[in-house]
Amino acid sequence: MFDIELVKKINDWKVSEDGALPICIGCDVGGSGLRVRISSFNDSEKYVDLGHAKAKCTKQLVDVLADLEQKIKQVNDKFVCLGAAIAVAGPIKAGTVILTNWQGEPAVRTLTLKDLPQKIFPKDRSVFLNDLEAGAYGVIAAADKDILEQNFVQLFQDKAPKGPVLANGRTAVLAMGSGLGAALVVRTPLLKNPLVLPTELGHVQIAPNMKEHKNFKQERELIQHISNHYYKGELDPEYEDICSGRGLPLAYQFYHQKKTGELLPVEQIDAGEVAKKAMDGEEDAVDALKAHYIFYLRAAKAIATSLSCESCVLSLDNQVKNHPFVMKIMKELEDEFYEFIRPDWMNGLRVYSQKSILNFNILGTDYMAHAIANKPE
Amino acid sequence: MFDIELVKKINDWKVSEDGALPICIGCDVGGSGLRVRISSFNDSEKYVDLGHAKAKCTKQLVDVLADLEQKIKQVNDKFVCLGAAIAVAGPIKAGTVILTNWQGEPAVRTLTLKDLPQKIFPKDRSVFLNDLEAGAYGVIAAADKDILEQNFVQLFQDKAPKGPVLANGRTAVLAMGSGLGAALVVRTPLLKNPLVLPTELGHVQIAPNMKEHKNFKQERELIQHISNHYYKGELDPEYEDICSGRGLPLAYQFYHQKKTGELLPVEQIDAGEVAKKAMDGEEDAVDALKAHYIFYLRAAKAIATSLSCESCVLSLDNQVKNHPFVMKIMKELEDEFYEFIRPDWMNGLRVYSQKSILNFNILGTDYMAHAIANKPE
Repeated sequence: MFDIELVKKINDWKVSEDGALPICIGCDVGGSGLRVRISSFNDSEKYVDLGHAKAKCTKQLVDVLADLEQKIKQVNDKFVCLGAAIAVAGPIKAGTVILTNWQGEPAVRTLTLKDLPQKIFPKDRSVFLNDLEAGAYGVIAAADKDILEQNFVQLFQDKAPKGPVLANGRTAVLAMGSGLGAALVVRTPLLKNPLVLPTELGHVQIAPNMKEHKNFKQERELIQHISNHYYKGELDPEYEDICSGRGLPLAYQFYHQKKTGELLPVEQIDAGEVAKKAMDGEEDAVDALKAHYIFYLRAAKAIATSLSCESCVLSLDNQVKNHPFVMKIMKELEDEFYEFIRPDWMNGLRVYSQKSILNFNILGTDYMAHAIANKPE
Repeated sequence: MFDIELVKKINDWKVSEDGALPICIGCDVGGSGLRVRISSFNDSEKYVDLGHAKAKCTKQLVDVLADLEQKIKQVNDKFVCLGAAIAVAGPIKAGTVILTNWQGEPAVRTLTLKDLPQKIFPKDRSVFLNDLEAGAYGVIAAADKDILEQNFVQLFQDKAPKGPVLANGRTAVLAMGSGLGAALVVRTPLLKNPLVLPTELGHVQIAPNMKEHKNFKQERELIQHISNHYYKGELDPEYEDICSGRGLPLAYQFYHQKKTGELLPVEQIDAGEVAKKAMDGEEDAVDALKAHYIFYLRAAKAIATSLSCESCVLSLDNQVKNHPFVMKIMKELEDEFYEFIRPDWMNGLRVYSQKSILNFNILGTDYMAHAIANKPE
């Protein structure tokens, strides 16, 4: 449960003429629980982050939020929530989501807007956001607040022009974590505000190099290994099959077997361990983590070019954690990125890699909560 | 030049209280010339299509439009154009486009909004649209006017649910012609009107089948042939390399050589001829046109799934022309479409093939002209 002492901060904020206290609520639900930001409707720079509370099923989450509603009432019974947004992992349909990062039967991890406490999540003023969608709105919010640039480093500066992380046209926000997420941020004269479109472009199938390519044989074996694992060796794997928390162990299995002859059961290989071994310089782990990033850059160029993006943002905590490794293999990543069937399309494209932790999801849900609050009736 | 007798129809339309006659203008510029629709701002059902006028360079186009402006003035000197849109092929940047379907130096095929006659294309009330963007707005307009469904047939009805051509969520509009175009139509509660996003997803690289697939060997030879032609045999070709007016001849070159041993120079192979031969049942042409469509359906499933579309629309005159052939190879197309790494993602997806000619570009420019005219100041 959240600490009521923190909630009391809302009493410092501006009230309306009728004495009501208008607030907005952003909420980020992860595998182990949730984080909440309450902010003043009148000034989003006035906010309080309530920290983390545990919840691993619908009931626990609703209990935490009901408790929060009570605490806010207790602190100020004239509060009114004008907008709320909740970031979740899982498919959203008509105000309902089945969370994919919780365990158990669908019933115990299904969340519906109308089942949430209605004072803090009024059902006509609340939305679920896909977690990467929230993250991409967080990128927009961070740009607005001028705290975006400091968390990223631009890659390939010898080849790419300079420019803002969030482009004036389109930006691809990628997130390699347990899966490979991809969201598009669109800014166009046709729309007043930037629009985020969540996509499934991390599931595009891999473009393999062809027979005359110098890396043909070795790369082909890896891709076939993955196809054998998932698709009876018949179909081309998707980028996420290598570029994800499940992809790294499978790549390690391949390189470890190649080096030692030993076939490790993939469920016994931990992605975090492989990354650690790679940082320590263990050869087969280095090869696996390198492949993980080489194919990530191949996915990035496919997504950024096919959606006509000016900027491509590699985000997420893993990107921060692996930052030293990424910097070490920069030359290879650059060679991969710029070897493309339409080289002229790469000219104006900028790529950024996250170098420090920032909770984009909370920023994004807060941003969207204010957008809802400001929407004309 | 356009016929002044047709223009006179605008005098039947409603005038404003101050006597002004408010109109909108849609214009579609193709390789050989342009088509124009003038419609009443007050009622888009009141319109006149002026037919086709020749223009193959900037000067000719501007002359035709200046002449049109004069004719409209002559017919009613109180007209005022409240919105105008022009569909063009080529990259658009800040109100300027270099047309890719005209011949000659860039200077003679560069078009700038401010150089057009300002009474009919007021620069703050006119836009260029990418031609497929216009086509996709045309799909929206046709749905509004209830003339969309009659021009399409739904494919794979034994596997797919029924539903409208234009989905309530997202629709992929594909167009295989001289190139392979792909635009996304987005309808979301966040936006009042549907939004069209032009993409370059026709340039995504081909997902080849892997070693254990029954068609592995034959397909691999074809893809390598194309890679040899464009990319020194090193890189994976893009879908457009097979699925386009230049792709069909290259596929024919491959199958003809396979059958006869003779390597025809690709520049001597005409795509239209190959299609005709295929309709007549000539074996190597049948193989080429089949590959052209098999890979088109592979591109369609990649695009539709990765953008989370409910509907996928195969549009354009070529699709209409080849409709009998498409119907004949339906079984193979269905097998291709439903063989996917994520079979459950195909469940809700609907595919439509255009069966009769409709100028979506004129509908789309007219739609956008009215959108501009109705935009709050």
